[in-house]
Amino acid sequence: MALSINAVRLIGRLDQLGQLGLAADGRRTRLAASDADKAGRDLLAAWIAEAGLELAVDRVGNMFGIWRGAAAASNLDPVMVGSHIDTVIDAGQYDGCYGVLAGLEVIETLKASGQAPARPLVVAAFTNEEGVRYAPDMLGSLAFAGGLSVEAALATVGTDGTTLGAELARIGYAGPLQPGFITPHAYVELHIEQGPVMALDGVPIGAVENLQGISWQRVSIKGVANHAGTTPMRLRHDAGHAAARVITFLRDLARGGGASVATVGCLAFEPNAINVIPSKATFTVDLRDPDEVRLQQMEAALVACLAEVAAQEGVSVATERLARFAPVVFDPGIVGMVERAAGQRGLRHRRMTSGAGHDAQMMARLCPAAMIFVPSTGGISHNPAEHTPSPDLVAGANVLLDVVRRLADSPG
Amino acid sequence: MALSINAVRLIGRLDQLGQLGLAADGRRTRLAASDADKAGRDLLAAWIAEAGLELAVDRVGNMFGIWRGAAAASNLDPVMVGSHIDTVIDAGQYDGCYGVLAGLEVIETLKASGQAPARPLVVAAFTNEEGVRYAPDMLGSLAFAGGLSVEAALATVGTDGTTLGAELARIGYAGPLQPGFITPHAYVELHIEQGPVMALDGVPIGAVENLQGISWQRVSIKGVANHAGTTPMRLRHDAGHAAARVITFLRDLARGGGASVATVGCLAFEPNAINVIPSKATFTVDLRDPDEVRLQQMEAALVACLAEVAAQEGVSVATERLARFAPVVFDPGIVGMVERAAGQRGLRHRRMTSGAGHDAQMMARLCPAAMIFVPSTGGISHNPAEHTPSPDLVAGANVLLDVVRRLADSPG
Repeated sequence: MALSINAVRLIGRLDQLGQLGLAADGRRTRLAASDADKAGRDLLAAWIAEAGLELAVDRVGNMFGIWRGAAAASNLDPVMVGSHIDTVIDAGQYDGCYGVLAGLEVIETLKASGQAPARPLVVAAFTNEEGVRYAPDMLGSLAFAGGLSVEAALATVGTDGTTLGAELARIGYAGPLQPGFITPHAYVELHIEQGPVMALDGVPIGAVENLQGISWQRVSIKGVANHAGTTPMRLRHDAGHAAARVITFLRDLARGGGASVATVGCLAFEPNAINVIPSKATFTVDLRDPDEVRLQQMEAALVACLAEVAAQEGVSVATERLARFAPVVFDPGIVGMVERAAGQRGLRHRRMTSGAGHDAQMMARLCPAAMIFVPSTGGISHNPAEHTPSPDLVAGANVLLDVVRRLADSPG
Repeated sequence: MALSINAVRLIGRLDQLGQLGLAADGRRTRLAASDADKAGRDLLAAWIAEAGLELAVDRVGNMFGIWRGAAAASNLDPVMVGSHIDTVIDAGQYDGCYGVLAGLEVIETLKASGQAPARPLVVAAFTNEEGVRYAPDMLGSLAFAGGLSVEAALATVGTDGTTLGAELARIGYAGPLQPGFITPHAYVELHIEQGPVMALDGVPIGAVENLQGISWQRVSIKGVANHAGTTPMRLRHDAGHAAARVITFLRDLARGGGASVATVGCLAFEPNAINVIPSKATFTVDLRDPDEVRLQQMEAALVACLAEVAAQEGVSVATERLARFAPVVFDPGIVGMVERAAGQRGLRHRRMTSGAGHDAQMMARLCPAAMIFVPSTGGISHNPAEHTPSPDLVAGANVLLDVVRRLADSPG
């Protein structure tokens, strides 16, 4: 039976949620547990209620829309779909939101069809997936999967000095439920690729079979502040120059590896004055690789580079681990279901590696999990220009629908 | 006659002025026209009054203590000494303050001696020498020497969005006099070396014969914000990486030149998020060389480097000139007087180049000018650890005393 999602409703909701957190200059930011995030959560909660689902919020602010339906008395574990609705700074409107709203759309479509799946269905919106305000990223799903205690999660101090717990309470999303209160039968996350490959190759459906490992560190380099005009070059201990050497080293390192990526996204100098040699440089390092051995090699190369730069420049170096996740292999059974569903709808598909971290990697600790990707135009993401054509958005949601139907009727 | 300055009074005043702008953590900051600068100015004004000098303030906030003495009716141009009392962030207590307070000390000493120089004597404290809050540096002396209109000076917007004019009015130092209201017969500035050479070589007196040219620019690099995990290295347009390449290039460039120095003191990334490739990097470049041709070669090398990096990384680059001063040659007559005075007091001395910019380079446009240097321990300056031993401070002030006496009695 050719059941399909309501394309107009899905696209409309993506646009409507995308309006929240927009500044006067058109730039969109909904950092986790901010006022803008509260606005997004309130809108999602209203749609969950409108769809006739049960709203549940856990202690770290993860939101769930639950449809027990005819499965209420069955005691079968539910099928969960979802993603997140928090954003980076200057974000697009699809990253995360697409997985949540398509998940809600799939459940509404099944509910309206009059069919009764054997298992309950749950759509999840996890807290602080982006990790911009609070580290680590994927904090909500990590806590849900038992990888971080509720106390540690709530005590997390953000870049603005706030704690996540206080901010969740302030916006009214510090719920009563213990993270992990649901043990899903399976978890499927639909997401934009955030990379250029699918759009370039004209592939509308990615069956994501694994996910890169991620290593996040903060590096602090201390040198000596001194006068920019009178200190000969050979006598300098320039923390800023040392940081620049590390940044160029990381580029060369990652360019030498196949799937490796390395990024320095944050950097600050002290005292940050035009005529003073920087006494301190603090920056973040984001290393990713689908292969754990190569990821560890990159981490070791960074350690060696820091030691060499410290010796050459006469500066001291300290590093702090912000996040570390090993590569994840998704459930081959669900990956195969994604391929078959795409094939039956006549959609080209390809097995893929996720370059980004996603809540699915945390849920994979709890239950069989996989992801479905749709193309990102130009590979642009974490940017207001992020875009996926509507036909691709609809096709991805329909593949999710098919996979969820199959999972919801599968026995324990 | 072996007239000497009052060492206890000079050292005591340096310590007392150095207390102003100290934070609870012991770090000292008195940015131009700030509340802390007002406190320093008020203290200087009180000492000028205590010494029986006439206080004058011009429209850009330059302060003067004038002793007309017996020369009041002579119509001879005055001899001016001075420097500045604003500081960088996390400053030492000698940079600038030493020249002002030693200048005041020299005039008080001559006044108390009962001698009457043929020329009036003036001690000056120029506004915003450091250039940390308002660009360019040496703004007050530049305006005094006619190199910047009063209107432009007062309209200068600071790093904190304030205008210099509004801040001077707020702290009560927007005076009535037109900058340049005095045309000095000569200008002499006593200053710490802010470099390591004199202390290393045990030379207490530097006769400064010239001063490096200075080129300050702000560079803005625009790339493309994108996801740190999913954007292959070869497809990145990383403004932060481009900035790092420029910083390492400048180090290599300056290390290749004899007296050249190059510094990147300020740097900021946008959006400055751990998992987003920087879309923008803004940084300052400070180039200095005592030779104008070499300074121009460095500027041209920077232009070429920026073009190469822009092409390689696929980013766009814009530069803005913040300050540009050609190298300055000081008055050989005064330099010779400094050498002779040091020699007569049995002090080792050496001809030197100033690596830093100083108000003396602006005053050299108006009248014969030169500088006297004393050692900086370890070459450390623009840093709370800045230090000059008291015997060196006293020796420098006595040489200034001798040079001022000679200049004040010289005919027009």
